[in-house]
Amino acid sequence: MKNLRVLQEKPAAEFKPVQMQGFAMLGIGKCGWVKKSIPEVGPYDALVRPLALAPCTSDIHTVFEGAIGERHNMILGHEAVGQVVEIGSEVKDFKPGDRVIVPAITPDWRSIEVQNGYHQHSGGMLSGWKFSNFKDGVFGEYFHVNDADMNLAHLPDDIPLQSAVMLSDMMTTGFHGAELANIPIGGSVAVLGIGPVGLMAVAGAKLRGAGRIIAVGSRPVCIEAAKFYGATDIVDYHDGDIVEQILKLTGNKGLDSVIIAGGGSDMLEKAVRITRPGGTVANANYFGTGDILPVPRLAWGCGMAHIDIRGGLCPGGRARMERLVDVVRYNRVDPGKLVTHVFKGLENVEKALMLMKDKPKDLIKPVVLV
Amino acid sequence: MKNLRVLQEKPAAEFKPVQMQGFAMLGIGKCGWVKKSIPEVGPYDALVRPLALAPCTSDIHTVFEGAIGERHNMILGHEAVGQVVEIGSEVKDFKPGDRVIVPAITPDWRSIEVQNGYHQHSGGMLSGWKFSNFKDGVFGEYFHVNDADMNLAHLPDDIPLQSAVMLSDMMTTGFHGAELANIPIGGSVAVLGIGPVGLMAVAGAKLRGAGRIIAVGSRPVCIEAAKFYGATDIVDYHDGDIVEQILKLTGNKGLDSVIIAGGGSDMLEKAVRITRPGGTVANANYFGTGDILPVPRLAWGCGMAHIDIRGGLCPGGRARMERLVDVVRYNRVDPGKLVTHVFKGLENVEKALMLMKDKPKDLIKPVVLV
Amino acid sequence: MKNLRVLQEKPAAEFKPVQMQGFAMLGIGKCGWVKKSIPEVGPYDALVRPLALAPCTSDIHTVFEGAIGERHNMILGHEAVGQVVEIGSEVKDFKPGDRVIVPAITPDWRSIEVQNGYHQHSGGMLSGWKFSNFKDGVFGEYFHVNDADMNLAHLPDDIPLQSAVMLSDMMTTGFHGAELANIPIGGSVAVLGIGPVGLMAVAGAKLRGAGRIIAVGSRPVCIEAAKFYGATDIVDYHDGDIVEQILKLTGNKGLDSVIIAGGGSDMLEKAVRITRPGGTVANANYFGTGDILPVPRLAWGCGMAHIDIRGGLCPGGRARMERLVDVVRYNRVDPGKLVTHVFKGLENVEKALMLMKDKPKDLIKPVVLV
Amino acid sequence: MKNLRVLQEKPAAEFKPVQMQGFAMLGIGKCGWVKKSIPEVGPYDALVRPLALAPCTSDIHTVFEGAIGERHNMILGHEAVGQVVEIGSEVKDFKPGDRVIVPAITPDWRSIEVQNGYHQHSGGMLSGWKFSNFKDGVFGEYFHVNDADMNLAHLPDDIPLQSAVMLSDMMTTGFHGAELANIPIGGSVAVLGIGPVGLMAVAGAKLRGAGRIIAVGSRPVCIEAAKFYGATDIVDYHDGDIVEQILKLTGNKGLDSVIIAGGGSDMLEKAVRITRPGGTVANANYFGTGDILPVPRLAWGCGMAHIDIRGGLCPGGRARMERLVDVVRYNRVDPGKLVTHVFKGLENVEKALMLMKDKPKDLIKPVVLV
Repeated sequence: MKNLRVLQEKPAAEFKPVQMQGFAMLGIGKCGWVKKSIPEVGPYDALVRPLALAPCTSDIHTVFEGAIGERHNMILGHEAVGQVVEIGSEVKDFKPGDRVIVPAITPDWRSIEVQNGYHQHSGGMLSGWKFSNFKDGVFGEYFHVNDADMNLAHLPDDIPLQSAVMLSDMMTTGFHGAELANIPIGGSVAVLGIGPVGLMAVAGAKLRGAGRIIAVGSRPVCIEAAKFYGATDIVDYHDGDIVEQILKLTGNKGLDSVIIAGGGSDMLEKAVRITRPGGTVANANYFGTGDILPVPRLAWGCGMAHIDIRGGLCPGGRARMERLVDVVRYNRVDPGKLVTHVFKGLENVEKALMLMKDKPKDLIKPVVLV
Repeated sequence: MKNLRVLQEKPAAEFKPVQMQGFAMLGIGKCGWVKKSIPEVGPYDALVRPLALAPCTSDIHTVFEGAIGERHNMILGHEAVGQVVEIGSEVKDFKPGDRVIVPAITPDWRSIEVQNGYHQHSGGMLSGWKFSNFKDGVFGEYFHVNDADMNLAHLPDDIPLQSAVMLSDMMTTGFHGAELANIPIGGSVAVLGIGPVGLMAVAGAKLRGAGRIIAVGSRPVCIEAAKFYGATDIVDYHDGDIVEQILKLTGNKGLDSVIIAGGGSDMLEKAVRITRPGGTVANANYFGTGDILPVPRLAWGCGMAHIDIRGGLCPGGRARMERLVDVVRYNRVDPGKLVTHVFKGLENVEKALMLMKDKPKDLIKPVVLV
Repeated sequence: MKNLRVLQEKPAAEFKPVQMQGFAMLGIGKCGWVKKSIPEVGPYDALVRPLALAPCTSDIHTVFEGAIGERHNMILGHEAVGQVVEIGSEVKDFKPGDRVIVPAITPDWRSIEVQNGYHQHSGGMLSGWKFSNFKDGVFGEYFHVNDADMNLAHLPDDIPLQSAVMLSDMMTTGFHGAELANIPIGGSVAVLGIGPVGLMAVAGAKLRGAGRIIAVGSRPVCIEAAKFYGATDIVDYHDGDIVEQILKLTGNKGLDSVIIAGGGSDMLEKAVRITRPGGTVANANYFGTGDILPVPRLAWGCGMAHIDIRGGLCPGGRARMERLVDVVRYNRVDPGKLVTHVFKGLENVEKALMLMKDKPKDLIKPVVLV
Repeated sequence: MKNLRVLQEKPAAEFKPVQMQGFAMLGIGKCGWVKKSIPEVGPYDALVRPLALAPCTSDIHTVFEGAIGERHNMILGHEAVGQVVEIGSEVKDFKPGDRVIVPAITPDWRSIEVQNGYHQHSGGMLSGWKFSNFKDGVFGEYFHVNDADMNLAHLPDDIPLQSAVMLSDMMTTGFHGAELANIPIGGSVAVLGIGPVGLMAVAGAKLRGAGRIIAVGSRPVCIEAAKFYGATDIVDYHDGDIVEQILKLTGNKGLDSVIIAGGGSDMLEKAVRITRPGGTVANANYFGTGDILPVPRLAWGCGMAHIDIRGGLCPGGRARMERLVDVVRYNRVDPGKLVTHVFKGLENVEKALMLMKDKPKDLIKPVVLV
């Protein structure tokens, strides 16, 4: 690792190295540092070096559970802010040196799916998600961003790096759960799971105007953050069946909206059981195992309860990131509260990733400043 | 049965009998004729005598499968057009002698659920459905309609009775499947099941502007009707797995919208598999068995495919029925094609019901003219 | 006035007076105290005595501009919280002694317009608004509430009366502006006018997740409150044309959403000019004068800019009030900041009303505690 | 003109001429044939030669009213089907020889406006409209199409050219009026103006499930076509004020939805007057004159009637055209009925255009087969 940061000792404009190091999935169950060629930049693309990185639970799923299948020497990571190093000939709004937010989702905007309203699925289901899925991720000395003008956003100076890197995935994902949930002003909401995505779902529910927000979780550090972001009630599964606890809190009426932000496939069943007729279940969770997700027949009114069940990959792209920047700039939500551990130096992405695997009890989200 | 129609030999206005006969569920698995008091009419209500009746598959589920639990001597039936016999003191827009369409769903409009946008669930999940659910149904010499001004619609003279009785449930249910399905103009749709509800879902999909409509079914009489109502392709499960057949028809892309209008709990799984990312699955079916309805995890994008799953009891009430009258009056859809068997005389509701149980191959829907 | 409060010295249950006093519009341009019979209560209705009252600018329009036409001896006022004195035989959820929030809009829920989704227009355009429009208002010793179970909400003990009375109209109206405005999370919003409705529109825009909120106004007390409720930028018409100022702030791009909350008919023109293509103009204002409201042809893209223009009377009824109670109870918005002047005693409604007419510079909203 | 078609005597692949002729706006009020270089094709673009063309009323506005300002030697026309002659290096789904539908709206899909949901305004208000607006149109021997994979659709052999050319603008525009109009199944609709766009709005309203459709027009050829496409009532302004006539037809209740498809700025006022509270006014018209479009204050409920006023440039691009192809292929709507005059030979675009200017009484829409 000793040579790792040499590449950056000279300004990028002067010196263009040809190789770089990155922290990669070597195969299912194994990860480590690899050397790779620095990516070529097409006419619409950018090369970016990371300023701050964060590992995601889905990186853990990818490496240790083989959730997206086998991959060899694929650099991990999809949460980053960085600095533009090189741009393609057609890039207009960014130049080398610009500080940028890099969304986890970087779609091909020229696609039929975009015309149908879902950039997340441009080129096929979930294919707007490229980093550490079917191209090298951001845990390297450099990474490639397709369609820079459409997929990067300028990072204002007054937003700290460790807050800004929460926008790439955590904030857009949690907020999307709230967006899908059709929350009326003053409506009642439950958020199932209060890891970093769930906490941003709590914040998102508050942002959409929720009244009561029941957050389901048990770790003290997360409970404290949930209250900070707007939760009004905490339900802990150690205290009994969460469906019963929540129904009791609502006088057995059920909730306007339920956001799933963690847990296994049984969470869909629980979510439907606590939603009122005419309410909405929104999923912001990546379900990693099981052939089926069960909808409880009777609680779903034998198919006739008007309980919508929705779920979708978070929005990415530039316009989304710019609006999230405004959420932070205008003090609507402070994502910094998510960050419990900060490392310095790219070489620490490995440690940070392992934290996400081990989940010590004081962890919400680690960040690596590069 | 010989006295059955005596009550109607004198005009209703002159003679008010106190007892009536009706065809009832006696208990799970048993049905027969019962004598009951003629219902009292509250200030906002109406007493109606049937002019045309139709049995529904759900009557079969109710009696022979105990789908809604035990009931004793509950008169069956929720599809009717009739003539007003008596009105309460506060009824303004209807008077004895008026010919009316009676929706299957007759909500309490004074309820919080109406304020939340779902009259179907006024008073509790599915509780807008009263006839043959938790009050006597329409298969009697008379029946009671709550809140007549809100729940009846005038029946124009130029709509045949046997067509009009299709509005109460078949048309509003099938159309609601199409309404929930978010069909874009020119969009591709599959309708799973082409019994009477499925056929009205086909007609509804066409009404919302669908291009291609793939109908799944096998009985020739239904296939012919499906084409009449707008189906462009027929898929028969006898020819192999319907998921494979439909995906092949779409070049493996999946459909914009899928409407479930029949079948068991596995239909939800099949529906998700044939829907494109960003598309919609809409259920118009009453799922009668099974604890859970399975959502296929991978086909649902591990929770992130933006495939909305929806389903709801059909809209009832006056405004809905009046708009359906306009659909028929202006020749947008002819529901008469659904009716394959016509009986005369109330005493034949039993035969008509048994037809729904036995489903002979030339049957779509029987009607009893009274 | 000396006998005014005698009626309340004995508990309502013991003593039922037959006459009451109220502050009324005597005719266009004239108001004063009148004696009237205490209203009769029908089976679904309630008689309520006020605990807190607030005058509205529309009371001023009604009396002094004849905005809704001539009225004789009509008691004014539609913003109240109170205590139930008497209920009809069919009222289930309220009893004498209950403290209640009374919405300005108290629809007939049994109406076709409700079936079409707009309770505000039940019985005809704007006819959900009854108090001080076509029935006596709340500025009396007692007032009548139609359909108590549907139109009242319980007032929790921990919400101060002067805050609670802001829910009847100010909060539901301002929030409705934000609801109509299709605000995306992080979106940019302008609120034109920051009287009490505009301030609640600012709070509502924040509740829906707005990023930047540009508030247009000039009075210091309102500007301070606008910042308290979430405004990020203040534009003052004394500093030049507001369209130019706002466009400049947005880099000439226009806003996602614009809410009109005050001003004359030219506000619609200004609002369209500052909205981006694909954005929304939402009106929460009562336009009192002029034959037409002008839409600027070119700024509206010659009819093709996809700038939606919307506007509607605030939602009323019980479910709405209950959700607004939750907004306050869970500390999402504190309406108390609106109240700058508090009077004690019903006899002071006159003074409070005159304050709304004279608009001293330290006024946002006066309240009368009874 | 005698050499005009020489260029096409040899297959395009063999012979690439450098100059072409086109029918152009020479300046406001003047049009004529010009010689121009054949456009260069960028990596994502295509060069197309027309197979069928249609002039649009907006071409008339452009030339003779200067509606979009001055233009010099700009080739006119934006309605075409054609054959691909040349493609750029990055085009994947089209090749020389392919027959294609060319939408009037050919956006830059890589734009922030697309990310905000409105491709029509990519690059600025209305800027998705390029042909004969700010680049040469389709009335030439060749024309240039930006981003071919995103903006062209394959033309099936079984759709006649003269029908297919109606998809480019007339069908997508008329249908968009219906899409914006929020038509409920069985809902009542008025279409103001029954030129070709209005006729497609009638067809679109029927496609969305309208019951009654009141069409406003007077020319017999248009009235006959309106009935063909689904109009149930015809209102002629020669018979008196159309607002009064329409309100009378609806029993003074107003309509669910009103689509403006022609007329001057007063049409917005008329449209609002005939819409019920909670209904929608949708504009599909290009308003060419006047500073303002008037909204009638009282009929709009003083700003509170919940009558949405909407309007937008038609959707273009590939996915839209493909769905319209399905509308035609599956016999949902036959656009061929619009075409009353067919010319052969590019040289006749001039005659066809003049027909649109003179509007003889048997004209709906002329087509030029090339």
